[in-house]
Order: sequence, then C-alpha cells, then structure tokens
Amino acid sequence: MANSLKLGVAGLGTVGTGLLDLLAKHGALVARRAGRPVEITAVSARDKAKNRGHDLSKLAWFDDPVALAKSDKIDVFVELMGGDGDPAKAAVTAALQAGKPVVTANKALLAHHGAGLAKLADDKGIALNFEASVAGGIPIVKTMREALAGNQTAKVFGILNGTCNYILTKMAQEGRSFADVLKEAQELGYAEADPTFDIGGFDTAHKLAILTSLAFGTEVNVAAIDIEGIEAVTLADIRNAGEMGFKIKLLGVAVASGEGIEQRVHPTLVPKGSPVADTDGVFNAVVVHNDFAGDLMLEGRGAGAHPTASAVLGDIVDIARGNLRPAFGVPAKELRKYKAAPKRAHEGGYYVALELYDKPGAVAAIAKVLADEKISIESIVQRAPAKEGAIASFMLVTHKTLDSSMRQALSRIERDGHVASKPRTIRIERL
Amino acid sequence: MANSLKLGVAGLGTVGTGLLDLLAKHGALVARRAGRPVEITAVSARDKAKNRGHDLSKLAWFDDPVALAKSDKIDVFVELMGGDGDPAKAAVTAALQAGKPVVTANKALLAHHGAGLAKLADDKGIALNFEASVAGGIPIVKTMREALAGNQTAKVFGILNGTCNYILTKMAQEGRSFADVLKEAQELGYAEADPTFDIGGFDTAHKLAILTSLAFGTEVNVAAIDIEGIEAVTLADIRNAGEMGFKIKLLGVAVASGEGIEQRVHPTLVPKGSPVADTDGVFNAVVVHNDFAGDLMLEGRGAGAHPTASAVLGDIVDIARGNLRPAFGVPAKELRKYKAAPKRAHEGGYYVALELYDKPGAVAAIAKVLADEKISIESIVQRAPAKEGAIASFMLVTHKTLDSSMRQALSRIERDGHVASKPRTIRIERL
Repeated sequence: MANSLKLGVAGLGTVGTGLLDLLAKHGALVARRAGRPVEITAVSARDKAKNRGHDLSKLAWFDDPVALAKSDKIDVFVELMGGDGDPAKAAVTAALQAGKPVVTANKALLAHHGAGLAKLADDKGIALNFEASVAGGIPIVKTMREALAGNQTAKVFGILNGTCNYILTKMAQEGRSFADVLKEAQELGYAEADPTFDIGGFDTAHKLAILTSLAFGTEVNVAAIDIEGIEAVTLADIRNAGEMGFKIKLLGVAVASGEGIEQRVHPTLVPKGSPVADTDGVFNAVVVHNDFAGDLMLEGRGAGAHPTASAVLGDIVDIARGNLRPAFGVPAKELRKYKAAPKRAHEGGYYVALELYDKPGAVAAIAKVLADEKISIESIVQRAPAKEGAIASFMLVTHKTLDSSMRQALSRIERDGHVASKPRTIRIERL
Repeated sequence: MANSLKLGVAGLGTVGTGLLDLLAKHGALVARRAGRPVEITAVSARDKAKNRGHDLSKLAWFDDPVALAKSDKIDVFVELMGGDGDPAKAAVTAALQAGKPVVTANKALLAHHGAGLAKLADDKGIALNFEASVAGGIPIVKTMREALAGNQTAKVFGILNGTCNYILTKMAQEGRSFADVLKEAQELGYAEADPTFDIGGFDTAHKLAILTSLAFGTEVNVAAIDIEGIEAVTLADIRNAGEMGFKIKLLGVAVASGEGIEQRVHPTLVPKGSPVADTDGVFNAVVVHNDFAGDLMLEGRGAGAHPTASAVLGDIVDIARGNLRPAFGVPAKELRKYKAAPKRAHEGGYYVALELYDKPGAVAAIAKVLADEKISIESIVQRAPAKEGAIASFMLVTHKTLDSSMRQALSRIERDGHVASKPRTIRIERL
C-alpha cells in the first residue's frame, strides 16, 4: 500500500476531537477507501494540557498553527479553528502557499475570503475542500460541485442552522416561548452563551453565501445577504401559521435570474408537507432546483462532532485519492462578479400579524389600505378579544406582493390608529 | 483548454436522448466544470433513421455497440442500452478490456455482474461509474462511495421505483384501485405495457443490490433479496393503514449486522411524518444510517430523461477531471463475500388484514392464537359489517415478532374457520 497521508490538524475542539475519534475507530476502513493509510501526525491547539480522550503524545505539537500549516511533517492541512480572521486565515493561506492541500470546516473564512483562497489553491493546483463548512454531515458541497455538474441551478434554499431549528421546533411542539426554549438550548449545549450568531441568522448567512457561489458560479458575497433572525418570532405566530397550514422555519434562500442574484435569510412560513417543513429539531436540509436533475433535497445532521468529522474525512479521502476539483466547481478566475438582482415582488406573499383595537370599522379600514396598495388577501384569521373592546388578534396571509407595497401598507395601517402595536410580517415561501 | 473528452454513446432511448439534450444546452458550462470540452463523437442504436430531435449526421454511427466500445474514436464508453445480458454486457466488458472508462445507467447489469466488471475496471485502473443506475438524478452512489468514506453504514433503505410510488400515492390520494391507477400510469408512460418488472419489485431489487454493496463493501448479490411487489396492496389496506397512522410504500431495505446482511423489497407501512413517508408521486428517496454522519436522506427525481442524463453527466465529468474511485468504494478484490443474516424477528412488526365472519367468538379466537404465538398486538381496527352476520373487516398492527411466529399464527387462523379469505400481512418499518 502507498505511503500514508499525513494530516496536520489545527484546532482540537468539538470537530477536531470528532476527527480523532473517527480515525481511531475507522483507520483500517478509511485506508481501504482512501487507497492508503490516513493519519494525524501533527496538531495545534490552544491548550496542550487539556484531556481530549486521545493520546496525543506521539504527535508533533505546534503552538503556532501557521507553523503547522507550513510544516514538512504534514501532507494536508486541516483547519478546524474557525473564524474569518487570523490565525485561521493566515494558516490556510500559508498552507496553500506552501503547496499543501487544505481541508476546512470554517464557513466564516470561506464566506469572507472564499474566492481569494480558491484562486490561491488553483494557482498551486491543489485542493481547498470545505464540505464540513455547510450543513455538517450532509454532502451538499460535493453534490453541488460534482454531482450536479450538468445542471444550471435556479434556486437553492435550506435550513442551515440547527440551533434555530431546534428552538422553532420546540416552540411549536411544546407551546413554549422563544426565551424559554433558548434558555434550555443553552443548557443543553445547542446554543452558545451569546446566541446572536446563530439566532440572528449570521451563521445561516455564511453557509448560504457558500452555497450561492457553488450554485451560480459567482464570487462569494456574504455582505449582499438580507439577514433577519428568529428573535422576533412569537409562539402566537407559530400557532397562527399552523392554523393557516404553515410551519415557521429560518431559511437561507438564494435565487438567480437573468437580472442577478437574490440572497436572503429570514424566518419563513413554509406550507406543511412541503420539503423542509418536516425537517425538525437539530436536523438541516438543503433543496436545490436544477434544470436537468430537477428538485433535489438532502436532509441530515447539520452539526455535531461526528457528523462534521465525517464531512472532513470525506474531503481528506478525496485528496488521498488524488481527486481534485476547483473549490467552487469552476476555476476561481472564472467565478463571475456578484450582481444583485433588483428588488422585486416577493413571490410567496406575506404573513401579517396585527393587534387591533376592537372597534367598528377596523377590519374595513385595513382591508381598504391593502386594496389601495393592490395587495391581495389569501386567508384571514381573527380571534375574538378576551372581552368586548379589548385588543383582537388579526392575522392574514397575502398573495405575491411587492416588498415596497407591503411596507407602504403597513406604514399606513400603523398611522390609522386601529392597531395597538407595530404590525409584524413574515415572508412565505411556496416551495 | 485541454483536448475534448470524446464520448461514445450506445443506446439512444430516453436517457441517451436526454444526454444529447444536456450537452446541446450546457456544452459551455460543462466544459468549464470538466476543465475540457465534452462531446459525443460516436453513437450506436437500433434504428439509425429514427428522429431524436438532434442532428447526428456528424457523429460516427456504429450498428454494433461492441465495436463502438472498442473504437479509437472515443475516450469514454457510455452504455445506455440496459439489460443484464448482451449486447450491454459484451460492450461494457469490451470497453473496459480496451482500457476505456465506462459510464452506465444499467442497474440490471450492475446487479448481476457488478463485482466482476468492477474488478476488470480496477485491473485496468479505469472508472466504472454508474450513478444513473440507482434513483436517477439523486447522487446516492457518489454520496455513499465518496462522501461517507469515514462511516460504517448499518442500514440503507428507500423508495427506489417511481412507478410503484406513483401508483401507491394516487391510490391513497384519490381513493382509486390498484388496477385503475396502473392503467392510468401506463397511459401516461409512467408504467410499461408489461409492468411486472416495476410493480413486482424487481427493479427496486436491482437498485437495492447495488446500494447494499456500496454500503457494506460486499459483492453484489441480487439473488439473496426477498422480493414482494405491490400487486396485492388494496385500497382498503391503504385506508386502514392511514387510520392507524401509516402510509404504504414499496421499500428496498438492506441491514447489516455481525451475523450478515438482510436485503428485502416489499410493501411497507411507514409511520406518517417519518422520512420517506412524504416522498410521494414519482419521487424517490434513500436513507442511509451511518455511525458518524448519522441519518442522511436524499430525495429527488428517480427517473426520467433529464434527471438520469444529469447523473450520467456527473459521472462523465469525474472522468474528465481524472477523478477515479473504485466502483464500489473499495477495490473489487477487497469486496467481501456476501453472507446472509439468519432469519430473525422483524423489528417493525406487522399489519394484518382479516375478513371475519361476524359470529360470536371470532375475535377471541384470533386473539388467543396470537397470544399462543407470543405475538403482541399494538392496535386494532374493526369495522362493523354492512349488515348483521355479514363479513367484518378486522385489521391489527403487531409489535416486533418473528416471521415464523406470524406465519404459524396465520396458518392457524386460516384453519380455524373464522376468516372468509386468506389473511394478508404487510411489514412495518419504524424508521
């Protein structure tokens, strides 16, 4: 059998430890599939003394991940530190410059510097693989980069953050508030102490930016994404949406047309029974609309030590086998400039939640404003107030409408004096 | 740019024409992704005169696919004829012997001769790619062969035949009989004039045999599969199952344990809301249970000219890029001998449908037989007969039980004189 493939791993947190677990358990199996043994020979992490459940005494230790990245002791640099800045960026750059293939799980790095790093990899004729950066154990990067090579993709969307999906699922299933479920998720380790990155939609945006480039062959552009998190979603919204036949999910959505690309992350009403509507808990799902393959959905574990390590290992075996593809499916120098599509009608319509003062003419006034703005109503749910004259809940679902018309209508409704609080909207996707 | 990759395509039916469509539309895109132009230079089919909507006059025509397979005019042989015998087998063998990589959509060929052909490809150091042979546009072969390289797989199952799924879905949604929907499917071109291969479960078995080898690293063994088709599924079964919380799907299931492998194809009750339960119409879905990646599901279009051509093209681009993997994930000479697991308890239990004479003691007698055989009942639905003394429908769902106990119990029930017709059973999978 050929010489072993020597890995240098920077970062021994959750995913790094998962990779140690995987190679400890499946070393022989991996060698058969890779055509050669695969072994970790050198590591770098912040705390050398920490017990990670594996004997690291025979591995070379580097305090500096950049030094590891350039080391002669390794064939492949595996970056599992995270973060869009240094040391991750410096180390990945150093490895590529030294002609060493890179495997990374770092979505932030790819989202901010993907095109530049891909160009560096192309110049050296080596791999920059990042399956683990999007949707954990789901092979969506390989699928889009390789399997769908014969397709033009029109749309990609998905549930890309397990923390948000866990929270929304628990709220729906157990009738609990956002704050209550978030607290539990933090106690269970599904959410960070500062959960902003997840629940604010930023993690989803990083992953979406990568999928967008793979789908449309454009430079990565995370800055172009409209981002809205799940913080404002209420239990009432989830229940009302449910009664009207929808579930609420945090989606990342990218759509391409002749006019350009639209990328957005926001809570979304999806029809029950549609793809991704039944993707619950910490599971992720990605749907790709292709002109030849048709609609394709991949669903699985989007995070966690072992699923993510599985994705990292898949990338490593590709390198062991000498299977090389451009990072984003086409050579980096051929990635097109990102062009944003002009704002248009939101195809799916809106869910609108209002709190109305229970007095004559309120509903008529609202209906008139919507009619004036040419917004067509699909369904309405109104709940009687607890007692006469109190505040009534009023929810409606619209057909396709322009963002600008909706904003105009809501602003008028707010001024008209019929609503007790600021109207809230959630977009609908008819998937 | 590098020299073009020259394809010789044998078989210009649905899939072959789909490939002509794809390269006509996406030639430039494919060239960027493949790193070189990809073109069909030679073809073979039964009828040269047939209009296929493409100008074939500039392509070399071969009456004999074996001659095409060996021709110096091609770099890659694309076999889209189908069938487990000649000319497909002879042509694929000839191409591999001549050192030409092969891309095929031929599940029957792989299911019957997969290990031998893979060994021939390995000996020559060339590709034998067959993504299109299983589940059309769904990249399940690439996923199992490459992306899941770091996993031991315990189970793979799925809906692998669009014709059967279309029929079962229509029966459920429209309350129509098997015969009625089959007739419609034939008129729409979703089912063949002789539908036995699809509805009898044989097509699913071929695909399952290939997935089994990919999952467990064993030689392909289609002969070891227990096969039961959907011919006997009644509208009443679908309705009764629905009331008890299940849908009926034709599944292919392969499970590995230390004792060996179990492969089976049969109509199955799957709990509503579970993976694959919502895979309706002509869609296919495959679920893989992995020890590191966890559960992964792929769902998409399992047949049709364009989805299947998309899969063929993905395989071709892998060859254009020089990305080579052993056909079944490990070298063919390392594929283990197939070992069948001994018959065991069916984990999921059974659905049992009985037609009872409406007389005192019938239910008690049946319950006693089941108790004697240590079969535990989970739920029962009994429908009152149209008039007193007429035949009553009696359905039950059991907990996990041995196949042998169930057969024994049914045989006793049949002899006891309480049932008006042969009892029918459908297995349940708790997914």
